[in-house]
Amino acid sequence: MSGEIHEECGVFAIADHEEASKYAYLGLHGLQHRGQESAGICSADGEHIYIHRQMGLVSDIFTPDVIEKLPGRSAIGHVRYSTSGTSHLKNAQPFLIGYWGGQLAIAHNGNLVNANRLRSELEARGSIFRTTSDTEVILHLIARSKHELAQDRIAEALQQVEGAYSLVFIKEDKIIAARDRFGFRPLILGKLNGSWVVASETTALGLIEGQYVREIHPGEMIVIKGKSMCSRKLQESPRQANCIFEHVYFARPDSFLFGSNVYESRKRMGRALAKESPVEADLVVPVPDSGVAAAIGYAEESGIPFEMGLIRSHYVGRTFIEPSSNIRHFGVKLKLGPVESLIRGKRVVVIDDSIVRGTTSEKLVQLFWAAGAREVHVRISAPPTKSPCYYGIDTPSEEELLAANNTVEGICRKIGASTLAYLSIDGMIASTGQEPERFCHACFSGKYPVEVPKTERRKRKVKE
Amino acid sequence: MSGEIHEECGVFAIADHEEASKYAYLGLHGLQHRGQESAGICSADGEHIYIHRQMGLVSDIFTPDVIEKLPGRSAIGHVRYSTSGTSHLKNAQPFLIGYWGGQLAIAHNGNLVNANRLRSELEARGSIFRTTSDTEVILHLIARSKHELAQDRIAEALQQVEGAYSLVFIKEDKIIAARDRFGFRPLILGKLNGSWVVASETTALGLIEGQYVREIHPGEMIVIKGKSMCSRKLQESPRQANCIFEHVYFARPDSFLFGSNVYESRKRMGRALAKESPVEADLVVPVPDSGVAAAIGYAEESGIPFEMGLIRSHYVGRTFIEPSSNIRHFGVKLKLGPVESLIRGKRVVVIDDSIVRGTTSEKLVQLFWAAGAREVHVRISAPPTKSPCYYGIDTPSEEELLAANNTVEGICRKIGASTLAYLSIDGMIASTGQEPERFCHACFSGKYPVEVPKTERRKRKVKE
Amino acid sequence: MSGEIHEECGVFAIADHEEASKYAYLGLHGLQHRGQESAGICSADGEHIYIHRQMGLVSDIFTPDVIEKLPGRSAIGHVRYSTSGTSHLKNAQPFLIGYWGGQLAIAHNGNLVNANRLRSELEARGSIFRTTSDTEVILHLIARSKHELAQDRIAEALQQVEGAYSLVFIKEDKIIAARDRFGFRPLILGKLNGSWVVASETTALGLIEGQYVREIHPGEMIVIKGKSMCSRKLQESPRQANCIFEHVYFARPDSFLFGSNVYESRKRMGRALAKESPVEADLVVPVPDSGVAAAIGYAEESGIPFEMGLIRSHYVGRTFIEPSSNIRHFGVKLKLGPVESLIRGKRVVVIDDSIVRGTTSEKLVQLFWAAGAREVHVRISAPPTKSPCYYGIDTPSEEELLAANNTVEGICRKIGASTLAYLSIDGMIASTGQEPERFCHACFSGKYPVEVPKTERRKRKVKE
Amino acid sequence: MSGEIHEECGVFAIADHEEASKYAYLGLHGLQHRGQESAGICSADGEHIYIHRQMGLVSDIFTPDVIEKLPGRSAIGHVRYSTSGTSHLKNAQPFLIGYWGGQLAIAHNGNLVNANRLRSELEARGSIFRTTSDTEVILHLIARSKHELAQDRIAEALQQVEGAYSLVFIKEDKIIAARDRFGFRPLILGKLNGSWVVASETTALGLIEGQYVREIHPGEMIVIKGKSMCSRKLQESPRQANCIFEHVYFARPDSFLFGSNVYESRKRMGRALAKESPVEADLVVPVPDSGVAAAIGYAEESGIPFEMGLIRSHYVGRTFIEPSSNIRHFGVKLKLGPVESLIRGKRVVVIDDSIVRGTTSEKLVQLFWAAGAREVHVRISAPPTKSPCYYGIDTPSEEELLAANNTVEGICRKIGASTLAYLSIDGMIASTGQEPERFCHACFSGKYPVEVPKTERRKRKVKE
Repeated sequence: MSGEIHEECGVFAIADHEEASKYAYLGLHGLQHRGQESAGICSADGEHIYIHRQMGLVSDIFTPDVIEKLPGRSAIGHVRYSTSGTSHLKNAQPFLIGYWGGQLAIAHNGNLVNANRLRSELEARGSIFRTTSDTEVILHLIARSKHELAQDRIAEALQQVEGAYSLVFIKEDKIIAARDRFGFRPLILGKLNGSWVVASETTALGLIEGQYVREIHPGEMIVIKGKSMCSRKLQESPRQANCIFEHVYFARPDSFLFGSNVYESRKRMGRALAKESPVEADLVVPVPDSGVAAAIGYAEESGIPFEMGLIRSHYVGRTFIEPSSNIRHFGVKLKLGPVESLIRGKRVVVIDDSIVRGTTSEKLVQLFWAAGAREVHVRISAPPTKSPCYYGIDTPSEEELLAANNTVEGICRKIGASTLAYLSIDGMIASTGQEPERFCHACFSGKYPVEVPKTERRKRKVKE
Repeated sequence: MSGEIHEECGVFAIADHEEASKYAYLGLHGLQHRGQESAGICSADGEHIYIHRQMGLVSDIFTPDVIEKLPGRSAIGHVRYSTSGTSHLKNAQPFLIGYWGGQLAIAHNGNLVNANRLRSELEARGSIFRTTSDTEVILHLIARSKHELAQDRIAEALQQVEGAYSLVFIKEDKIIAARDRFGFRPLILGKLNGSWVVASETTALGLIEGQYVREIHPGEMIVIKGKSMCSRKLQESPRQANCIFEHVYFARPDSFLFGSNVYESRKRMGRALAKESPVEADLVVPVPDSGVAAAIGYAEESGIPFEMGLIRSHYVGRTFIEPSSNIRHFGVKLKLGPVESLIRGKRVVVIDDSIVRGTTSEKLVQLFWAAGAREVHVRISAPPTKSPCYYGIDTPSEEELLAANNTVEGICRKIGASTLAYLSIDGMIASTGQEPERFCHACFSGKYPVEVPKTERRKRKVKE
Repeated sequence: MSGEIHEECGVFAIADHEEASKYAYLGLHGLQHRGQESAGICSADGEHIYIHRQMGLVSDIFTPDVIEKLPGRSAIGHVRYSTSGTSHLKNAQPFLIGYWGGQLAIAHNGNLVNANRLRSELEARGSIFRTTSDTEVILHLIARSKHELAQDRIAEALQQVEGAYSLVFIKEDKIIAARDRFGFRPLILGKLNGSWVVASETTALGLIEGQYVREIHPGEMIVIKGKSMCSRKLQESPRQANCIFEHVYFARPDSFLFGSNVYESRKRMGRALAKESPVEADLVVPVPDSGVAAAIGYAEESGIPFEMGLIRSHYVGRTFIEPSSNIRHFGVKLKLGPVESLIRGKRVVVIDDSIVRGTTSEKLVQLFWAAGAREVHVRISAPPTKSPCYYGIDTPSEEELLAANNTVEGICRKIGASTLAYLSIDGMIASTGQEPERFCHACFSGKYPVEVPKTERRKRKVKE
Repeated sequence: MSGEIHEECGVFAIADHEEASKYAYLGLHGLQHRGQESAGICSADGEHIYIHRQMGLVSDIFTPDVIEKLPGRSAIGHVRYSTSGTSHLKNAQPFLIGYWGGQLAIAHNGNLVNANRLRSELEARGSIFRTTSDTEVILHLIARSKHELAQDRIAEALQQVEGAYSLVFIKEDKIIAARDRFGFRPLILGKLNGSWVVASETTALGLIEGQYVREIHPGEMIVIKGKSMCSRKLQESPRQANCIFEHVYFARPDSFLFGSNVYESRKRMGRALAKESPVEADLVVPVPDSGVAAAIGYAEESGIPFEMGLIRSHYVGRTFIEPSSNIRHFGVKLKLGPVESLIRGKRVVVIDDSIVRGTTSEKLVQLFWAAGAREVHVRISAPPTKSPCYYGIDTPSEEELLAANNTVEGICRKIGASTLAYLSIDGMIASTGQEPERFCHACFSGKYPVEVPKTERRKRKVKE
C-alpha cells in the first residue's frame, strides 16, 4: 500500500576502480527505491577518507563538483529513509570517524536488537553518542577493540551485536563487508571489469553493467584490498532468515533476490491469491506500481481481464495545500486517477500488496465506488501484517497495525470493500519458489527468529 | 517514445469561487503532464489582477505563501513545456498587461500559423514585443481594437489570427475562454458547486471534484461573470480538426477527450495493431508508462501474455554524470530496468507509441537483446510520424523525423529489431471510436487542415 | 539619516571592449550604492542582444557562468532600488524589446514628469504596458517613431518626454547615451584603453582603471560605434538643475560630481554648519558612514574633538526578529553601538545629513542619552527636507516629510535633542564650491525647475 | 589589516528566560564580528536539549521558524570563523552529545595546547572522534569522568586540559561556564531582568539591554540553575594572560574589555605612535574601519588633520571575477576607494593596525601613490606580529609572518612606503591603561605564558 511501510536503507561498495565515487553514485541510483531521504558517499585514496552526505535524492546530490571532491579508487555509499521523525542530516550515513586506527566509515542496512543495552554499557564506560542510530554502537565497539587490524576489530565488534545488519566499511586502503548470521537483509557480491562490488540489490549492478557473483553469506565477512578479496566466517549461521517482505514489497521487481526474481515471485503470489480467493468479476486492476505484477498473475490465473484502471501521476510533490472546502480522498487523488469509463458499472478486483493502517485503502476503495464500480473486491497479495519488524523495516507499532487488532471482516467493513481477502502465509512462501525455512516472516506470523528484548522495542531519542 | 515529442501547454480557469487560486493550482496539477517547465496563475478580485509565474512544477511553485498573494474569486492558470531552447521565465504564461482597458491576462495552448506576419505588421505600426511567443500577438491585436468591452476586443483580435488556440483570459471582473474554429487543441467546460471551470483536459476536474459539462465548441467564445456564462459564436467552424496525437500520446489515459476515453482508445489501437501486424511470440512488454494500454490491447487480441518486463525508476533527476568508461544505453538504463529472468530466451513483442528520432528506440531494443531475448519485435501503436506539427505539438523538424526519411525496413534495421510494424492511419482513427473527419492527423498523413506559410515554419528568435 | 531616503538607480555602458560584460559588472559594483535591489546587464555582439537581470547584489548575481552568457564587445548595465513596494524582477532594468528596428535595450536613472499622460495616450493608441515604470513610455515612443535609425527614433522620443533622465541604450551594434536638458542626474563619459565608457558616477571608473573625460552635457546625446563617438545636441539647455542631494547624501564620497569632489563638499558643509550653528560641547560624533565627512569639517571648524562614538555593525541582515519583551530603539541598535565610556557625562554634537520621518533620529538621540550623554546637540549638514522629489530620488510624500509639517523647534522636541540646527540653503550651495544656479534644490527649497502636473505625482500601480 | 588575521569564536549563554533562544540569537548578533562562518544555538527545556547549527551569518540563520524549534528557558550559542580550510558544518558549534549523564552541549572560544596528546590517549582507550576540533577532547574527558554531577565531571575534565578556553555548557536543566586559569580569551557575566547571561564581549549585552556584572575570573567555573548562580574556583590562577590582540584588533571598539574600553585603548595607541614615530605630513588617513580610532589619536597628538581618505564599500561579496586584462590592486579596490582630490600632491600618514603577510599593505600603499600622494608614511598601531598564536587567534604560521622574517626597513621596501614605523610593545601595553603583567603579547613578543609542545603546533586533519 503506497506510502505506509518503509525500509530504511541501501548500501553499496566498490574497490580499486578509477572512477570509484562516480560508480558508487550510479550504484546508489539503482538502490534509490530503498531510501529517498538522504544519501552519502565516502571515498578513499589510500591515505585519506573523504565524505559527502546530504538530504535528498542521489541524482540531485552528486553533481560533478561533489564527485570531484571524492577522490580515490574505493568508495562506499548509502541511501536512507526514515519515518521515525528523526530525519536529520546527522543521522545520514555513511558515518565517518577518527579513532585509534586512523579513519573508518560505515554504512548499515538493518537494525540491531541489542543496541540500547550496548549503548548504555558503552556510555557507562565513557563513550559519547552523536546520533540516535544503532549503527553508532558498532563504531564504538570497533574503537574499543584491542586488535591491530581493522578487520579483526570489526570481527570482535560484530560478535557482540545481535540483529540484522548488512554492512560495508571503508578504511583508507580497503573495503570490508559483513552480513549478520541470519542474513535478514540482502547483500550481494558483484564484479565490474575486475573490481569487486558489494550492494544491497542486483539493481545496483544493472546500470553500471556489473556482473552478479553471489550473495554475501549469512555470518560472512569479506575484506577487499585492491583486486583481491578474502572471505572469513564470522559466525555460524544457525538458520537463514531472509526478509520475505523484500519479495512482497520492498525490493525492485527487476531484482534477483534470495534465489528468485522478485517480479516473478509477485506474479506467483497473484496466481496463488486467485486460487485461494477467487471472485466473479469483470476486471482486475492493480494499485500502481506495487500491485502490478501480482495483478497480472491474478488475471492470468482467474481469466479475468487485466486493466490499468488507475493512472499514476508522476508529479506528486512533497506537500500539497488542501482547500478548506474539503475534497474527498484528497491524498490518493493527487497520485492516482481512475479511468472512469473502464470502471463504471463493473465488478472490479483491486490488487494491492498490503494494508497497513487502512486509511489509504479506504480512500482507494471509495475512489472505485465514486467512479461507478458495481462491486469492489480487494485482494492483498500478502498475509495480514500483524507484528512489527525489528530487523530494519520501519513498520508501525503493534497498536497502529490494522491487522493486529481487527479481523479480516472488520477490515473489509472499515475500508468499505465488497469483499476482502489476503494471501495465506504458506501461499506467499511457496510463491517465492524457495525453501520455506529460508525466510523471516515475523511481520506476518509473529515468529521472530531472534528474540527482541522489551527494552529494545522503543528507541531512546535525542531530540534535534 | 519517452522524452522525444512534447506538447506545449495546459490551461485552466475558474470563475467566482472563494478559493479560486487554490483550485487553479489543483487544477493545474491535474494538467501537469501537459507541461513541466513553468507554471503560472493570475487571480482577480474585481479591481486588480495578481500574478505568479515560476520555472518548475506546480506543486513546488504554489506554496501557501504564494497562494495567499493571489486573492480574488477568479483565476486562470497555465503549465508550459518547451523544447525550443527559449525556456525562460519571461516566456512563461499567463502574460499580464496593462492597456487602454485596464489589465488583462492570457493563457494559451496551441500555435498560431500567421503570427510572424502579424508581428511584422504590428511592429511596423509601433508595437513592442517582449517575448518570442506567438501569444503576444493576440494581446497587441486586443490592445489596438477600438471596442469598449474586453470580449469585443478579443473577438476582433481572434478574427485576425489563424491556427490553433485554446485560450483563457482574465479581466478584473470576468473570465473569457475561446477556441479556434477547428478545435485543434482540447478545451472543456465544467462546473464546481455552481462555479464555472474551463480546462484543457477532464483530468483537471478529477482532483477538484468538478463535473464535466461539455467541450467548448470550435469557434466558440464564452464569457463568465459571476455565476452566469454566455456563449458566442466567433466564427463558423468549416470542419473539426481535433488533434489525434492527444489520443495517441499526449493526453492522460484517464482523460475523456473528443468524445472518447483515452485509455480505451489506446487499448483499441493495440488490438488493431495485433490484427494488422501479428507475430508469434512469448510475451508482450510495454514501454512504460505510455505503451501500457496499447500493450494490454495487443496481448488480449493476440493471446500472448502481457508482462511488465521493463521496470520504470521513479527517481530520474534532470542531469546525470556519465562515467568516462562508457556505459552502453546509459540514458535508457537510468529510467528503465529489464526483468531479465522474464526475457531471457524469449520472443518479445515490445509495444511503444512512437519512434521519433530513433535513438531511444535503438537503445531500448538493445536492452532486450542484452537481457537475452531471442527475438525483439517492435510494434508501434500509431503510424509513422512523418510531418511536423504547426498547431501546438513540439515535434522535430522534417529533417530530424526518422520516418520522414526512412522506410519501415530501414528504421527496423536502424533500431536493430527482429521486425517492426506501425499501426495504419485508418486503424488508428477507427480506434478512437469517432468519425474520421473529426481529426487532424497531419503529423502522420501530411494533410494539414490549415495551410502554414513558409515564413511561419521557423520562429524569429530573440536570444535571452 | 540612515535608511530613509533612497535614490533609484545607477547606469553604465561600455563600447567595443573584448571583456565588455565583465567590465560592465565591475562598473556596476562601483555604482552599487545607487541601488541594491536588482541589477542587470545587456550585452551585444553585433547581431544579437543578450540579457541577465536578477534581484540582489551585483557581486552575487554576476557569476562566471552568467557573464559567459553575455557575449559581445558592448554592454550596458543598471542597478536599482525601490521603496515603492513594487520591487519585482519585471521592473528590473535594462528593459529589452523587439520592435520594428530589431532589438533595443534601455537603462534609465531619473524620473519623467509627464509619463502618466504619455502612457494614457499610448494606451489609447493600442500600446501594451508590462511594467509600472515610466521608462517603458520611452520605449513605446521609440517604437512608434518613423525614423530609420535608432538614434533618430530615440531623439524623436526624447523630444516628447519631460523630467529627469540619464539614459544608456544598446543596439545590436552601438551604444547610445542621453541626458535630459537640465542635467538632473549625473552622467559621465570616460575611456578605458581606447574604449568609451558611460556611467552615473566616477566611482565606476575607479575599479576598472578608466579615465574620466567629462560629463555628458545636459541635452546631449552621444552615439558610440566601435571606437568612434559622435555627440549631438538634442535640446537647448535653458539652465542646469544638478541634483544637490547627490552631494549631500547620495553619491559616494570619492565621486567627482558636478565639478567637485563629494567628500570635500560634505566637509565644507560641516564647516559651514559649525559657523552657522556653533555650540559648546566636548565631542563631535558622526552618524556613520554618511555623516563622517561633515563631522570632520564641523570638528575642524569648531575645534571640538572628533570621535567615532557610534560603531557600525557590518552584519545587519534583512530581517530581524524582535523579542516580545520590547527592546528600546531596537532597529538602531542592530546597526549602531555607542562607545559608552566616550559619551558618559559629555556634551555631544551629533552630525547627520538629514532627518526624514524623524523616527530613526529619535532612536538615535535616545541612544546617546542612554549612554549617559549630558547634552545631545543634533546638527544636520543640510537644510530641512520639505518637498518631495519628482526627478528620481524616492522621498516620502509631503505628508510624511517631518520638516514639511513641523518647525525646527518642534522637530527638536520630537527627537528629544538638547538643540537642533540645520545648515542653511545658501550654506549648503556655497559648500559645493560651484555656481548656485547650477543646482536643483527643490527638496529643500520647494523651487521645482520643471513643473510637475498633479496627475504625475502618484504613479498608477499594476499590482503584482 | 583587512582580512588576514582571524580569531575563531564568540560564545553566549542565557539562563532561565522565557525567550532564551531569541535572546541568544540577538546576543550572537552582537558577537558576529568574532566569527562569520557558522553559528549555532542549543536550547534546553528542563528535559531535552535542542540544536540548530548552520553555515552563514546569525541574522540569516535564525529565522522565526528556526527559533521556534529551540524551545526552553535556557540557551547557549556560538559563532565561528576558520581560516584553516576545514570550514564544514560538522565543525560548527555548539557540539551536542549523548553520554552516560544524558545530553550535554558545549561552545568553546580558545585553543587547547595539549589537545593532540589527549586525543591520542583517548583514542588509545577506544574513543571515537567525529571532528578535527580540540573541543571534542573536552567532551570525551567529561564522558569518562566517574562523577555524578555534570559540574563535577566538567571540573575533572578541565583539570586535564591546558591552554585557552572560555566555555559555556548547557545541560537539560542548567548552564555552566568556565574560563582557563590565565584568562586568555574574554568571558563576561551579565544580567537581564534577573536572568544570568554569559558572553565573550559586552557588545552582546548592548542590543539586548543587559547589565554588565563582571568578568568570569581566570580559573573560575560558574553553575547557573534558574535564577541562582554559584561560583567555584577550578584552579589557582598563577597570573593573568589576557590577549592584548583583542584590544589591538579583534574586539569591537564599543567593547569594555579587560578593564578598558577598546576604542579608547586604540586611540591611545595612535597617540603613543605619534609620539614614538612622528612625521611631517599633510593628513592622517585610517584604513577603515580597523584603523579609525588609532588614526584619530595620531591626528590629535600630531596636530595633522584627520581625513577619511579611503571610502569603504559595503557591498563586497564573497567572490569576484577578475578580468583577464589585469587590474592593479584589484582586491583592495573592490573594498576601498581613495578620495583622490584629498590625496593628490599630499604627504599622507596611513594608519593601520597590523601587517601580516604584507600583500594587502603593498596594494594599499600603491593605491595612495596612484591617487597622486607625494609621500606615503605607514604607521602601524601595534608592534610587528612575529610569532604565531596558539591560544585561539588564527594567525599564519611563522614562515608566513612577514615581520618574523624581515626587518622594518625590509618590510617598508616591500610595501613601497616612504617610511614605516610600528608601535613599541611597551607603548601598546601602556595604551591599554592596565597593568602590563595582565596581558599575553606572545604574538608580538614571542613570550608564551603557557608552553606549547611541538606536537601541538600542527593540527591533525581529517579531510572532509
